[in-house]
Amino acid sequence: MGWIDTLKFQEDGLIPVIAQDAGTGEILMFAFANRDSLGHTIRTGNLTYWSRSRKKLWEKGESSGNVQKVKALYTDCDKDVILAKIEQVGGAACHTGKRSCFFNELSGETWKEVGVQVFDPSKVYK
Amino acid sequence: MGWIDTLKFQEDGLIPVIAQDAGTGEILMFAFANRDSLGHTIRTGNLTYWSRSRKKLWEKGESSGNVQKVKALYTDCDKDVILAKIEQVGGAACHTGKRSCFFNELSGETWKEVGVQVFDPSKVYK
Repeated sequence: MGWIDTLKFQEDGLIPVIAQDAGTGEILMFAFANRDSLGHTIRTGNLTYWSRSRKKLWEKGESSGNVQKVKALYTDCDKDVILAKIEQVGGAACHTGKRSCFFNELSGETWKEVGVQVFDPSKVYK
Repeated sequence: MGWIDTLKFQEDGLIPVIAQDAGTGEILMFAFANRDSLGHTIRTGNLTYWSRSRKKLWEKGESSGNVQKVKALYTDCDKDVILAKIEQVGGAACHTGKRSCFFNELSGETWKEVGVQVFDPSKVYK
């Protein structure tokens, strides 16, 4: 697809993706996509990454049901990063059960855990 | 510093940084930092990246005056990405003069330019 061809992927074929809550503007997670995962995102409407650890397409929420419904896609001035505005089904993007993966805030010299706990991961991932 | 030591840098010594407007939540830009640029960020209070093209510390706004004053720093569950909530002096983060670098929105099959033009780059970068 033309819009995918104009993107600048890294040498490893990946492009960074920032997932932002379309309603609140909160940053929920950060991961990578490749060409196939972007095609899959458009076909399904659910944000789909490339899992670097599992080396496969990763439709976020495929196991937990907490998919990320894409409301809008953006790219930056260099077309080498994607910003996805999404609706987070289930209210939590992080595998820890936190609403956002960015739940560590710098406080003086240390990272302090903050953020909203939405679910108990031991009950969701069995 | 301890908080830097707990971060997981990429093999090339870099870590992705998302810059978000502390007031509005708008995503302004995305770039990379290394250990030195994070130290420089803390010392100056201004978000400092590592320029991959120029291979040097890049205190954003050093030439235009449009620095990014850091209000809070976050990292994610894997501690391999940084989210910086900032105040964008001058109101524009992008070298194009747009408020945000993410000014291309997917519209059907093409990227359509959107977003607010804050300054004329030909008048700022001489």
